[in-house]
Amino acid sequence: MVELRIEKKVKEALENGQPVVALESTVIAHGLPYPHNVETAKLLEDICAENGVVPATIGVLKGEIIVGMTQEEINEMLNDEPLKIGTREIPYVVAMKKSAATTVSATMRIAKMAGIDVFATGGIGGVHVGDWDVSQDITEMAKTDLVVVSAGCKSILDVKKTVEFMETFQILVLGYRTDKFPIFYEGLSSFALEHVVQQPDEVAKIYLTKKELGIEGAVLVANPIPQEYAIEESEVQKYIEQALKECEEKGITGKQVTPYILSRVAELSNYKTLRANIELLKNNVRLACQIAKEIVNLKVQG
Amino acid sequence: MVELRIEKKVKEALENGQPVVALESTVIAHGLPYPHNVETAKLLEDICAENGVVPATIGVLKGEIIVGMTQEEINEMLNDEPLKIGTREIPYVVAMKKSAATTVSATMRIAKMAGIDVFATGGIGGVHVGDWDVSQDITEMAKTDLVVVSAGCKSILDVKKTVEFMETFQILVLGYRTDKFPIFYEGLSSFALEHVVQQPDEVAKIYLTKKELGIEGAVLVANPIPQEYAIEESEVQKYIEQALKECEEKGITGKQVTPYILSRVAELSNYKTLRANIELLKNNVRLACQIAKEIVNLKVQG
Amino acid sequence: MVELRIEKKVKEALENGQPVVALESTVIAHGLPYPHNVETAKLLEDICAENGVVPATIGVLKGEIIVGMTQEEINEMLNDEPLKIGTREIPYVVAMKKSAATTVSATMRIAKMAGIDVFATGGIGGVHVGDWDVSQDITEMAKTDLVVVSAGCKSILDVKKTVEFMETFQILVLGYRTDKFPIFYEGLSSFALEHVVQQPDEVAKIYLTKKELGIEGAVLVANPIPQEYAIEESEVQKYIEQALKECEEKGITGKQVTPYILSRVAELSNYKTLRANIELLKNNVRLACQIAKEIVNLKVQG
Ligand SMILES: [Mn+2]
Ligand SMILES: [Mn+2]
Ligand SMILES: [Mn+2]
Repeated sequence: MVELRIEKKVKEALENGQPVVALESTVIAHGLPYPHNVETAKLLEDICAENGVVPATIGVLKGEIIVGMTQEEINEMLNDEPLKIGTREIPYVVAMKKSAATTVSATMRIAKMAGIDVFATGGIGGVHVGDWDVSQDITEMAKTDLVVVSAGCKSILDVKKTVEFMETFQILVLGYRTDKFPIFYEGLSSFALEHVVQQPDEVAKIYLTKKELGIEGAVLVANPIPQEYAIEESEVQKYIEQALKECEEKGITGKQVTPYILSRVAELSNYKTLRANIELLKNNVRLACQIAKEIVNLKVQG
Repeated sequence: MVELRIEKKVKEALENGQPVVALESTVIAHGLPYPHNVETAKLLEDICAENGVVPATIGVLKGEIIVGMTQEEINEMLNDEPLKIGTREIPYVVAMKKSAATTVSATMRIAKMAGIDVFATGGIGGVHVGDWDVSQDITEMAKTDLVVVSAGCKSILDVKKTVEFMETFQILVLGYRTDKFPIFYEGLSSFALEHVVQQPDEVAKIYLTKKELGIEGAVLVANPIPQEYAIEESEVQKYIEQALKECEEKGITGKQVTPYILSRVAELSNYKTLRANIELLKNNVRLACQIAKEIVNLKVQG
Repeated sequence: MVELRIEKKVKEALENGQPVVALESTVIAHGLPYPHNVETAKLLEDICAENGVVPATIGVLKGEIIVGMTQEEINEMLNDEPLKIGTREIPYVVAMKKSAATTVSATMRIAKMAGIDVFATGGIGGVHVGDWDVSQDITEMAKTDLVVVSAGCKSILDVKKTVEFMETFQILVLGYRTDKFPIFYEGLSSFALEHVVQQPDEVAKIYLTKKELGIEGAVLVANPIPQEYAIEESEVQKYIEQALKECEEKGITGKQVTPYILSRVAELSNYKTLRANIELLKNNVRLACQIAKEIVNLKVQG
């Protein structure tokens, strides 16, 4: 029988109705360059702890699904050249005893299996520019009950289509103190959000209402990067264009495209994008903690 | 705990296995101009009553989901500048205590929660012309067991793609005495329907068979407008084009487009489209009543 | 109450935990010309028997869903001018007491209802070239737990989009001893597969892991045609183009297109494509048998 390995502190928190926030491992393995990745992983866990919330970093180590990876397990995973997986690939890596970093979709699914309600990430995947190339993140959010806190999606995606797809697939998007869909480091897009909340307890109420009504799928909290860290779209665009050109020249395709672009854009921007990336992650984790605590409070009140 | 407020007569009918037909509130709040909207709401409920069927108009009043709104509740909702919501927005309006008119998707979901089998509407949402802009109605019909009676979809949609999407997402479309997909006021499109029924009891049998087999999703009964009320496509097209042009000029977008177009087309046609709209609604409610009664009969027979 | 009619040998095998492989009836009714169709149906059942596996050919006869059709029932179905149905049409043909051959989606759904784990087909449906025209097979594989063994999809489809859609809709595709997606008679496409298996027991393990984790949807085993029977893409392309041209000239559309093309391409190729079609079916059934036996073994081991 396949079982999740839920780390002791996470298990106790879940059993005792204490707040837990899930964190993904792809940002560590494929989203940030070394040593910023392991440092940031530690930093995000610390933010949870400071806020009285138990962090649960999720990943797969030699076929074992871990909810609440230790620093040692994260390092072991990194040394294993982990695959980057979505939900559909979970059974493959488990059965084949491989190591894998979990993207938004896989992290959501595992968090849900473990009984976690809130997940903080950087940005979600969505619809790529051009012909049909749509992330499993959208499909997963259409199915899986969870609060997902993100700074919208990256501007290399087709943001308009991503917003439209989320409507079609009935994913409730809540602007957190914004009525524009945020785009990662760059602050706000021009795409209107109709549903805006001002406080973490509003998200908690909406999420629990959804669960009680049996309406499936995620609540996506669109939380813009703090204004002081946002980078001009045109500036980022310039770096992205150069990185995309390099991808073409070097024949980089598929899942390799996003990490390559992120790393090159970091270099080209003199690490301004890297700082922004880390700041938006911290900002999302802080909000996720507040929401997780409000959910716990509301559950206690019944 | 979130609960539906099911009006007494509706509750009794459901408990006693008597026929109920769900009606949506968007047609009242956003589909027809005042006072035709409230008059039509009353008229449709009267048709149900004359046919021995209990009507259940569905909407949300200050966060409360009502199945079987009274005339007073409908007026209260209208005075509240109600939002126009699909399924994904239900938890938002409930938790935030807002008033809302329910579109096809939200009405279907709530009708299903209440245990209703049949829903009559004017036309379903579908695939818009241009880039990806697909209504939640399609997604909802892909998931939710219900008989939906409609006069097809409006011709401002991409009818061909709408029909194709319904195939992909496994929504069974039954032509009611027609082998062409109907397009709202205009009668029949050129798109073939492969599955045709001649009698309400055939719909009832197919729907109950589907439920017994555990095959999810709606049965869409495509019921053309009575021939004498149909309007030439070219005539409607002329009005729509003018209204669309006005939308562009006035910067009307998103959920405001459909109500604006409907209201302008009514004016431009000297209210011929309005009469057609009301007649097709009456026609759909009458057929829904017959189907609801056949379902009740078949359930009794076991 | 609607019930499947599960043939005695199939029923006993399922009850006793013995291996069963589901087979579709569309290949018999619409995929191969007479008498090759009935001969091949018999041949595929014989391969199962030789491998110690019970075959279960699935189809609908005058409204009755049969799992494990006899030769007589297959002939009766063929004489009935059977409809060609996907999942959404099952309730229609059952309630209306029609005969129907089941495509990949309908066969999968019925196999699942019967408790079968493995299904062998020729090629799956996917995304057609041009505007949105996507087979129910994709939707069904996104939902229904089953191992589906196929030689990829036909090259008349948009293979790139088909592979992308399967990612979006979270269908796990396993290359069987190949890292390229196979395209029916023609061997391998240029589209990379990331997840490759070498042995039937790997498929069995991945499938059972998926079920234990509660992750919905099919495992598609992409099993290329044996090299000696593969036909040059350019050669097949020439025949397909001529057949497509004839479709246009003769006004053949919808569900009639595929059978027409298959039959014309067979003639034009002097039956080389027909032999290839039969060989890939045999090859898929042999692999399906091995996988079905490994699943049984793993279930016994617990
Ligand atoms: Mn992709
Ligand atoms: Mn839309
Ligand atoms: Mn099609």
